[in-house]
Amino acid sequence: MMRIYKKAILPLDFQANGIASGIKKSGKLDLALLYSGIPAKAACQFTSNKIQAAPIRINKKYLKEKRDYQAIIVNSGNANCFTGNRGLRDAEETTQILSKAVGIKKNSVLVASTGIIGKRLPLLKIRNSIPKLVMGLSRYGIDKAKTAILTTDTFAKEITVKFNIGSQIITVCGIAKGAGMIAPNMATMLCFILTDARITQRALSKALGSCVNNSFNCITVDGCQSTNDTIISLANGASRNNLIDTDNKHFNLFLKALNIVCLELAKLIIKDAEGATKFIQIRVEKAKNFTQARHVALNIANSNLFKTAMYGENPNFGRIIAAIGASRVDVGEKDIKMKASPLNKKEIKVAVSIKQGDACATVYTSDLTPEYIKINAEYN
Amino acid sequence: MMRIYKKAILPLDFQANGIASGIKKSGKLDLALLYSGIPAKAACQFTSNKIQAAPIRINKKYLKEKRDYQAIIVNSGNANCFTGNRGLRDAEETTQILSKAVGIKKNSVLVASTGIIGKRLPLLKIRNSIPKLVMGLSRYGIDKAKTAILTTDTFAKEITVKFNIGSQIITVCGIAKGAGMIAPNMATMLCFILTDARITQRALSKALGSCVNNSFNCITVDGCQSTNDTIISLANGASRNNLIDTDNKHFNLFLKALNIVCLELAKLIIKDAEGATKFIQIRVEKAKNFTQARHVALNIANSNLFKTAMYGENPNFGRIIAAIGASRVDVGEKDIKMKASPLNKKEIKVAVSIKQGDACATVYTSDLTPEYIKINAEYN
Repeated sequence: MMRIYKKAILPLDFQANGIASGIKKSGKLDLALLYSGIPAKAACQFTSNKIQAAPIRINKKYLKEKRDYQAIIVNSGNANCFTGNRGLRDAEETTQILSKAVGIKKNSVLVASTGIIGKRLPLLKIRNSIPKLVMGLSRYGIDKAKTAILTTDTFAKEITVKFNIGSQIITVCGIAKGAGMIAPNMATMLCFILTDARITQRALSKALGSCVNNSFNCITVDGCQSTNDTIISLANGASRNNLIDTDNKHFNLFLKALNIVCLELAKLIIKDAEGATKFIQIRVEKAKNFTQARHVALNIANSNLFKTAMYGENPNFGRIIAAIGASRVDVGEKDIKMKASPLNKKEIKVAVSIKQGDACATVYTSDLTPEYIKINAEYN
Repeated sequence: MMRIYKKAILPLDFQANGIASGIKKSGKLDLALLYSGIPAKAACQFTSNKIQAAPIRINKKYLKEKRDYQAIIVNSGNANCFTGNRGLRDAEETTQILSKAVGIKKNSVLVASTGIIGKRLPLLKIRNSIPKLVMGLSRYGIDKAKTAILTTDTFAKEITVKFNIGSQIITVCGIAKGAGMIAPNMATMLCFILTDARITQRALSKALGSCVNNSFNCITVDGCQSTNDTIISLANGASRNNLIDTDNKHFNLFLKALNIVCLELAKLIIKDAEGATKFIQIRVEKAKNFTQARHVALNIANSNLFKTAMYGENPNFGRIIAAIGASRVDVGEKDIKMKASPLNKKEIKVAVSIKQGDACATVYTSDLTPEYIKINAEYN
């Protein structure tokens, strides 16, 4: 039985905090810390954009050491991307200042940044704020942390799933930011998943890969790919359950919980998409395989013409046909069947069948609106 | 010496006409005829969208016969796409009614349609209008024809280039429609190029392929690919010049003239892009080859975030970086150099250098504006 809570509840032996360090001129919270009292396994996924932000490159360096990790430090308001060697040093120094302040091993701190691209990270502000950030760590600090990672988001994205392995209760808690795939200059999507599950490294990595494929890789706001997309999951084993591994029966339970967390956070990102008035689900059926189904669905979801039609509640389904054809999948017009729920509702479901096989995929997207343009024309 | 005229002037032995057949409810011109008094070589390029409109499929059938051609009939207001076998019969019958009315060989008529996808072509209206269309053919009818092919365009796209081969004057005249790559449901871009040059089939095809690659394949409004994109060039040889072939010196002259025609029409389409307030030129330099340069330039040009930044005159160049990285070209951030002309002008030039080699490409695009959304939210 999965118990689902629509708020972030920290798993055992985790603490968190969020403060305003002055990176955001508005004075809003902009520096978050997620901390595990005991070393944790980590599994991560990063953007496939060829230009990767400094924090991602530093994480990759640390992850090569295949150690355990204990903390994630996150700033919003600055992406620390396209910042050269200086940016790499800033990201690395951030982790080292933090590891000293907390008293944990060097290189056991992961780091993420989100905000404008191409401006130097204000390291001094971060350095001066870290003592306060660490002092304020608490079991309830997750509510500040989840807010401190936001940029153009209008609400925090959070969810917790609990389930049992024997008499042990496992908690999987996720928080995310992102108002769509969206805005590379705002560094887009960050997601942190904390669990007290006792799980092997390979099982955690396998589960995360599988869940991300069905959730965060199935959402799009504008097809623009970020330089900073980061998903980090930490599993500290504090719940002392029987070890979860890829080949035992507990794995599917954990996978199910993680899937709920990832899919819900992904949908919340779309519900908060910049300027959106619609939440649109596109299901492609009878595809050759999942990858093809998702490819076709994303082609529809990324069509500005489809998205403006949805905004206008305009049943101009020729645009879906054109997008399917543009996806390069070898379909004839006779192979295509379409249906859509009423367009005047806030949530719209579109189903397309393409007669290539038996696989399907569902993608989530938003409409394209004048408000999206306003937000992105003015942002800097 | 190339003489350039910013209007359509028919080459020798061509006539044209345009009338209102009632396909457009507005009563505007919607049926055009381009006619050569003598059989002409034809070279064509069609959309690579897997879903192709009926007129394209009929043209491909006729072109397999490798004959000469004498007429092009074009309707606007209906794309005759996603219309099944009925649509194929409608397109074919249109050409046959016309060939009888003009008294030319069956299958020597090419056909193009532009407008909404998925609605049956009103063949009866076309049939009833063809006598009037043919009767009105004249040397000056090109002004009606160029208007009858438009949909959301706000002006007709036209250009004529004249040059000499010996004492013979060759005229190359082009007209086009399209308010961007743009709107698949409005069937996007049509272009017709008429010339009285005496040229071999292979030279005409080679020249067209080369010119399209540098012009129409280098423009984008919204990255949405049409089901109806069509470029047809007819060369009737009426100027009686020494035959142009791929291996003689006249070929480069013809190529130069055709290039001017294609590039100017392509730019005019972008200048008329739906809702656009900016004409943006993106030049990518130091690429491995032309294809890579164009690929990177198109990735920037199709980024909604770049386009909204240009609309907002917002120097948010991190969005260019993110788009380059998303193009999958293996560049590091140190390889990239950028500059841009002032953003508060109507015409903006962006130059990007990527340190991969010596090739370059220029792509033309527009900004993304609330007006684009309004036009496409309401169109049906």
